[in-house]
Amino acid sequence: MPPVSRPFQRAGPWAFALLLASAWVTPAFAQTDPLPSWNDGPAKQAIVAFVRATTDKASPTFVPPEARIATFDQDGTLWVEHPLYSQIMYCLERVPTVVKAKPELAKVEPFKTVLSGNREALSKLSLKDLETIAAATLTGMAVDAFHAEVKTWLETAKDPRWKRPYTELTYLPMQELLRYLRASGYKTYIVTGGGQEFVRVYAERVYGIPPEQVVGTAGGTKYGYDKEGRPFLTKEPKLLLNDNDAGKPEGIQLMIGRRPYAAFGNSTGDRQMLEYTKAGDGARLSMIVLHDDAKREYSYGPAQGLPPTKVGAFPQLLHDEAKKQGWIVISMKNDWKRIFDFE
Amino acid sequence: MPPVSRPFQRAGPWAFALLLASAWVTPAFAQTDPLPSWNDGPAKQAIVAFVRATTDKASPTFVPPEARIATFDQDGTLWVEHPLYSQIMYCLERVPTVVKAKPELAKVEPFKTVLSGNREALSKLSLKDLETIAAATLTGMAVDAFHAEVKTWLETAKDPRWKRPYTELTYLPMQELLRYLRASGYKTYIVTGGGQEFVRVYAERVYGIPPEQVVGTAGGTKYGYDKEGRPFLTKEPKLLLNDNDAGKPEGIQLMIGRRPYAAFGNSTGDRQMLEYTKAGDGARLSMIVLHDDAKREYSYGPAQGLPPTKVGAFPQLLHDEAKKQGWIVISMKNDWKRIFDFE
Repeated sequence: MPPVSRPFQRAGPWAFALLLASAWVTPAFAQTDPLPSWNDGPAKQAIVAFVRATTDKASPTFVPPEARIATFDQDGTLWVEHPLYSQIMYCLERVPTVVKAKPELAKVEPFKTVLSGNREALSKLSLKDLETIAAATLTGMAVDAFHAEVKTWLETAKDPRWKRPYTELTYLPMQELLRYLRASGYKTYIVTGGGQEFVRVYAERVYGIPPEQVVGTAGGTKYGYDKEGRPFLTKEPKLLLNDNDAGKPEGIQLMIGRRPYAAFGNSTGDRQMLEYTKAGDGARLSMIVLHDDAKREYSYGPAQGLPPTKVGAFPQLLHDEAKKQGWIVISMKNDWKRIFDFE
Repeated sequence: MPPVSRPFQRAGPWAFALLLASAWVTPAFAQTDPLPSWNDGPAKQAIVAFVRATTDKASPTFVPPEARIATFDQDGTLWVEHPLYSQIMYCLERVPTVVKAKPELAKVEPFKTVLSGNREALSKLSLKDLETIAAATLTGMAVDAFHAEVKTWLETAKDPRWKRPYTELTYLPMQELLRYLRASGYKTYIVTGGGQEFVRVYAERVYGIPPEQVVGTAGGTKYGYDKEGRPFLTKEPKLLLNDNDAGKPEGIQLMIGRRPYAAFGNSTGDRQMLEYTKAGDGARLSMIVLHDDAKREYSYGPAQGLPPTKVGAFPQLLHDEAKKQGWIVISMKNDWKRIFDFE
């Protein structure tokens, strides 16, 4: 028997009877819409139908609570990814500190370009340049020190368009979806191409997702001792898991060990996770967030008749796959009443 | 308000009042001993004191439920590891099937020796030989096929001494401890040098630990498609995590992302996990199971005045560390009333 709060006890046993009677007539859950920021279109209907199909014991596709796994890409699926992934902003903004500790880097590319602040030169940095910057800013320090640095940065850094902390740029409808799935017995995971340790710093506060449920691109750590002989872990520049494309189902196997029943993504890096999820037996839900709302957020990708984008690429191919495999497209423009909590 | 079962409703509101009154006087939990197979010695007292110190809101070392992580080594800590780890038995017993599929291996070492069944030759296999056998029997197949093979083996294979399935050779006191910690809000993890996918096959049924809470020595998987175009994962002979020694805290960081509050081990491979756990702030519990009961289980290690063992090595060093760092030794002989559930 769970503890009962004192006010009811003081009110005497009759209060219980009343409370119970009213609860049976109109269950609290049925009274409230778990997805108030969603318009009543095919996306919302698909979510509600999926939850019913997998949580109603009378359903032929009922899933026992312990197997209820839902995975979410982060960038572009749970929060804004344009004009650049937040973690890339972090890496670029950390460069001056890194150069301060190692002044010889100031004259070396790509650090020289980053320090110049020249936007045009910055936009031309290659993937290899970005990897060099990532290795210099994300590895070589104690895990705890890294967490502290990211936390400090998140408290002050602001998105250039909304002038708000990045952690406020999460999509309200997706936050509702996370809560709805959890209330329905699902364990919600982030499965991101972003850095696992980076996302862990804020995932619990921002999404209600604990560190152990964040799967991301992961580097190794090295166990060692400080001067006082206390053990600690150092972030190593050794890639264990590139959590993009085929790396997503591979990362899911490594970290979760079972196939999700629902998966949510928005770009080519999510394709394999979506098809792997949908290929499971019983009721499975694969959804893609389409960025088609230039006014309230962004609009990008060939599906909008716009030029291809490096960040959050969503080519025609993915549209065709979605149709073919029964993935459901979430139109930000049509399916979402509100996009941000601060609106 | 959580649902209330119908019998109480029929009995009318007074039943509630009575129930609540009695619950307040004697909480159900206090009436039953959560660790009935443990003698009332220092080990049991340390466990109960630790749980109180971390779950009582009035305690200065209270730990919020989401941070309550406890990690358990498996072989020698949760179940029998002598004379050989169960997974090694699996690998050896799989060799004939592997050779059937690849007859050319019959003439190649170490497969030739395994097929000969010569016990003396078998006992002389090197670590490299065992690795070759492990690679041949644990990789190269679909993850699902591997799970099915392990499941089938577990249903028929028997321990040579007790003539029982390996999965019955778990220690009852440790099973009680797992349940007690979970009832106290702890998430229980296995952190084993054994194969992550191997242990996941039975961990939920045997220990109540779901696949996502099994951290083990882990290889990579490769995403691909079968003839019908359905995606599946293949186990690769690529080592991602050697979950022994320093690999245990490193694996904990990778898979869990926070330091445990309690850790349980029994041999040198657990040393770093135990010291890493104990080095955290607040109340932390590190315990080692000592195999000192030759009659009911096994007795091994120099601490017993016995020759060193390859399986579950527990050298004098670990004894000294335990004393120095405040780890608590669990004597199977003195601390456990019963060892197995079937006794």
